[in-house]
Amino acid sequence: MYSFKNDYSEGAHPKILEALIQENLIQNDGYGLDPHSLHAAELIRQEIGRDDADIHFIVGGTQTNLIAIATALRPWQAVISTDKGHINVHETGAIEATGHKVLAMPVKDGKLTPADILKALDHHTDEHMVQPKMVYISNSTEIGTQYTKAELEALHHICRQKDLYLFLDGARMGSALTSPVNDLTLKDIAQLTDVFYIGGTKNGALYGEALIINHPDLKPDFRFMIKQRGAMLAKGWTLGIQFEELFQNNLYYDLAAHANEMSALLKKGIQSCGYSFFSDSSTNQLFPILPDAVIAKLKKDFLFSIQERFDDSHTVIRLVTSWATREDACKEFIKSLESCK
Amino acid sequence: MYSFKNDYSEGAHPKILEALIQENLIQNDGYGLDPHSLHAAELIRQEIGRDDADIHFIVGGTQTNLIAIATALRPWQAVISTDKGHINVHETGAIEATGHKVLAMPVKDGKLTPADILKALDHHTDEHMVQPKMVYISNSTEIGTQYTKAELEALHHICRQKDLYLFLDGARMGSALTSPVNDLTLKDIAQLTDVFYIGGTKNGALYGEALIINHPDLKPDFRFMIKQRGAMLAKGWTLGIQFEELFQNNLYYDLAAHANEMSALLKKGIQSCGYSFFSDSSTNQLFPILPDAVIAKLKKDFLFSIQERFDDSHTVIRLVTSWATREDACKEFIKSLESCK
Amino acid sequence: MYSFKNDYSEGAHPKILEALIQENLIQNDGYGLDPHSLHAAELIRQEIGRDDADIHFIVGGTQTNLIAIATALRPWQAVISTDKGHINVHETGAIEATGHKVLAMPVKDGKLTPADILKALDHHTDEHMVQPKMVYISNSTEIGTQYTKAELEALHHICRQKDLYLFLDGARMGSALTSPVNDLTLKDIAQLTDVFYIGGTKNGALYGEALIINHPDLKPDFRFMIKQRGAMLAKGWTLGIQFEELFQNNLYYDLAAHANEMSALLKKGIQSCGYSFFSDSSTNQLFPILPDAVIAKLKKDFLFSIQERFDDSHTVIRLVTSWATREDACKEFIKSLESCK
Amino acid sequence: MYSFKNDYSEGAHPKILEALIQENLIQNDGYGLDPHSLHAAELIRQEIGRDDADIHFIVGGTQTNLIAIATALRPWQAVISTDKGHINVHETGAIEATGHKVLAMPVKDGKLTPADILKALDHHTDEHMVQPKMVYISNSTEIGTQYTKAELEALHHICRQKDLYLFLDGARMGSALTSPVNDLTLKDIAQLTDVFYIGGTKNGALYGEALIINHPDLKPDFRFMIKQRGAMLAKGWTLGIQFEELFQNNLYYDLAAHANEMSALLKKGIQSCGYSFFSDSSTNQLFPILPDAVIAKLKKDFLFSIQERFDDSHTVIRLVTSWATREDACKEFIKSLESCK
Repeated sequence: MYSFKNDYSEGAHPKILEALIQENLIQNDGYGLDPHSLHAAELIRQEIGRDDADIHFIVGGTQTNLIAIATALRPWQAVISTDKGHINVHETGAIEATGHKVLAMPVKDGKLTPADILKALDHHTDEHMVQPKMVYISNSTEIGTQYTKAELEALHHICRQKDLYLFLDGARMGSALTSPVNDLTLKDIAQLTDVFYIGGTKNGALYGEALIINHPDLKPDFRFMIKQRGAMLAKGWTLGIQFEELFQNNLYYDLAAHANEMSALLKKGIQSCGYSFFSDSSTNQLFPILPDAVIAKLKKDFLFSIQERFDDSHTVIRLVTSWATREDACKEFIKSLESCK
Repeated sequence: MYSFKNDYSEGAHPKILEALIQENLIQNDGYGLDPHSLHAAELIRQEIGRDDADIHFIVGGTQTNLIAIATALRPWQAVISTDKGHINVHETGAIEATGHKVLAMPVKDGKLTPADILKALDHHTDEHMVQPKMVYISNSTEIGTQYTKAELEALHHICRQKDLYLFLDGARMGSALTSPVNDLTLKDIAQLTDVFYIGGTKNGALYGEALIINHPDLKPDFRFMIKQRGAMLAKGWTLGIQFEELFQNNLYYDLAAHANEMSALLKKGIQSCGYSFFSDSSTNQLFPILPDAVIAKLKKDFLFSIQERFDDSHTVIRLVTSWATREDACKEFIKSLESCK
Repeated sequence: MYSFKNDYSEGAHPKILEALIQENLIQNDGYGLDPHSLHAAELIRQEIGRDDADIHFIVGGTQTNLIAIATALRPWQAVISTDKGHINVHETGAIEATGHKVLAMPVKDGKLTPADILKALDHHTDEHMVQPKMVYISNSTEIGTQYTKAELEALHHICRQKDLYLFLDGARMGSALTSPVNDLTLKDIAQLTDVFYIGGTKNGALYGEALIINHPDLKPDFRFMIKQRGAMLAKGWTLGIQFEELFQNNLYYDLAAHANEMSALLKKGIQSCGYSFFSDSSTNQLFPILPDAVIAKLKKDFLFSIQERFDDSHTVIRLVTSWATREDACKEFIKSLESCK
Repeated sequence: MYSFKNDYSEGAHPKILEALIQENLIQNDGYGLDPHSLHAAELIRQEIGRDDADIHFIVGGTQTNLIAIATALRPWQAVISTDKGHINVHETGAIEATGHKVLAMPVKDGKLTPADILKALDHHTDEHMVQPKMVYISNSTEIGTQYTKAELEALHHICRQKDLYLFLDGARMGSALTSPVNDLTLKDIAQLTDVFYIGGTKNGALYGEALIINHPDLKPDFRFMIKQRGAMLAKGWTLGIQFEELFQNNLYYDLAAHANEMSALLKKGIQSCGYSFFSDSSTNQLFPILPDAVIAKLKKDFLFSIQERFDDSHTVIRLVTSWATREDACKEFIKSLESCK
């Protein structure tokens, strides 16, 4: 059975694996203080156009989120997110476990707006309530949508005005940046956010997220926090090597572009069959609304997740493509879908 | 200026103060291990009809909430509340500061239903999400409404069925129990909840809440938690004395009944003037919807809180009465209101 | 049985009680925003000679300690204390519950020295270890000793040099300041510490500690933290009134001086009987080393705590005097002791 | 320069790397729910002789420690460790960050005894102090020593008697189990502890620790805690594959035995030169006491850590060997050492 369950079903892209093999028996200093990690950080600084950025490599996304947020906030402060935000729903209360409230604003399309932020601020006015201090967004979002440059600029502006940190979770940023409707660059993102991360796990690395800190307030002593939360990998150079590969020869973008092409292929086929989508995605996550009977048939040959019930006879499913998704598998999926009609 | 801002604007009821004065120079053991605290606990056990209850006296409500909830939950577990719940809005993230997520369910009338609980459970299905384990309700609620016996039984039933602890915040329970529409007794509440508290601060005590633990899981080592959170009062017998007074000669009910009478007087006057209310309250908190011009005039002679804007020309205010509220002050308020027309 | 168990066995000094009674039915704003709290803060600012100090009134000592420390430290930072420090031993892990390590340095006399601090710093050198950032001391200490001005200046100096906050727990500071060997004033302490508190509970108040923040880093948003930890008393003006009384007409010093006189009386009597002491105390806590047989006899008429076993036949006990200790009780105790010989 | 700094300077053992390469493009379910993880757990259950054990694979040691301890303890409970314990010194307060105090007992040889545990219990007697509930030991210890079967049985016995959980940190257990003085087996350890882990990172894996839960109290909902702390690896099957390799064909023991052989070679050479050791180690960590002048010369060709100053002219250094340590490098080191004389 072919799986469209997620973008971390396979290991590492062969070039990344090859680099790890090459280095395997060479001695390196531990905990990210090795030449590969330093070099990878330098490559990313060039790519984002910020010499002043602090860059840390961390194994996974939940870790990265909780460390970044808990470092930024004082004990009584809170982070504003959409109600669909990964930190609000799918991290088992990781942020609350660090002592902070997630202020979840209801949204339809997975994207936060300045109006949502102002609403959160309006409701939190004195010391009997938490103090909002950070804004968390994902790009691409949890439902596959993505921010335009104008939207991100607006968020940047309101955050500056209201003295809030803007944090962008880029677990799936490769897919956003290479989508046909994208008008953002890594350079833009590095100018418009205070801290963000570039996901490796969901874009061809065996593991690893590159956290980029732009705001000087968030930089001091950051490695203490990484260590305390158990996120300082002993063989940290394996993270460095993977990001060296991703940011040499355009690999980061190429892998994400492949995921998007596969997703576009699925999208076109689903549309041709007359089905619509729960969200307007041009990234590697699609949320088609399908009849329950069709889903039952597709399940025999493909793995995918159920997102939520749509109505009495329809359900939203989630299809995810990756750097490793095979074109023939996508075509098989569409063929199966067509045969269900 | 007379204040209807809250029910803790004055000190203690004279009988309670007198008892404190009588005991003032008598030596007592500290930390709640004195005869007065033991006696007060015994009086409450009789009143609630549970010999097996553990009873602890704690200075304030936020402390009581955070200690009860953090003791009940394992690190990955969450508490279900209404979106208006005191723990969700007005405790500066005290629950999150203990590491736990508050799952806030939107409600209109301040009351949680079994359907709300089921909805929360339906959305939390695996280890990528928090695990709901406790239900938090307030009686009377944050907007003055109150639970019927049937409603509380339904909550009790669903909590038993789904293995959830039911916690009732009774900071203003006196007002609920003596309201004209009440059909609950302390005995009922002690049978239908796993842990609840009887508020003293807002019903004639200088300070103090009596926490009653019915469920055996929540009893062991509870005093460790009280001490750790800084809530074990050195001169703990002063809490015992206050609750002795409240639960002798019906004082707890008499004081609450007076608050309700004063509130009823205000309610009737406001209705006579043709104004309606934001919530259907028969307790000591009223939320009339008044024209902004009227509010401006009332503000010259009375203190009260602004709840929220209702429409372009109307605002919801909050009026609170207490055991100490003077009848003539209520009449003056209504006279002022009438003169605004 | 007369109790020398602690200095919080009785209620409030009559003058303080009288002031509470006078105000009892007067309406006041809640949460410490009332005129009495503001006035008491002003009186203390005058007494300590710092117009710039932020002053907050909090019900108890453990609360005050945990709030002050957790506000000062970032998540990876630690507080240096003696191994006998109240925060290290007798607060049920309250500081650790806020996420911070207490670095406990072994001392003999209850007092921390610059050498202890340097030792702690020497052992914590990189991000694999916690980062010391605050120094916690008590005056008088947990074993009745007290700092000289020269000692406190030395601690102040090393803290400035090493960029550490200096926090002084003054739960029993009245006794230290009025002891015959004292050479410190509140003005000195306010100049030499970054944050400290003046204990009321153990010096004649019904409850209450006055936290004084001198360092500007620790001031912003402090009330958020008080509220979050459940330490913002609803009827906060009762704290204000008590500290108004303590800092008018010298009451704070008079009460502490009485405790010391009673303690001196006990000390002289114990010395006359030929017994020595576990620590060199001129404050209201004495730690005589007594034969077990003597202790057994004294226990029939007096209450006191056992501190620790000294040798096979001797034990250290703790005797505490207070503003309320009766001279005749002290004489009775000495008479009993003499009769044991 | 050859490094004896640690046992995680190289990547993975070639067999492990090969297995990862073989699986690289095969789709697997995420988060440890794949066949490899299940199979590896089964292999370990056979090796330890406990069908009832729950087994979880976690990326690193600090994570594993903090998750195991924070799951076992209620908020007011503490863990007993030696003062040299990794959790006490080298994890940046990771345990305190979960809210729990580490009770550090001073030891000379890195090993905890029943007497140390009893001492900790004797000092923690009521609710004003933390409640010890877990005992943490490492085998081999932080200074290379190791427990005998009799010692571990004694710890097991006292823990059963006093109702304490016994947790063994086995980050370097392979080296302990294959040392010439060892008389323990994994089966013994699985019978004598409540929870322990088998370290992969320091014994040939790219990353990964296998946590084995024997006590039924600690099993429920454990995956929630793994996820919440950011320790649930997306591509979890890579952990399963690595432990499959380690526990097939004796690889786990063979790799550790090689490290010990290299260490024995160094030890013999150092002893021949007339130097003594800070601790009595037969495992892969050696702590020779060397003249400062010798250390200065060795530093030109070798990397190693400084443990601590011994006296005015001598320092304790730390040498660590691993599965990858080359015999010729050890011989070179000894030759250098000899040439220093």
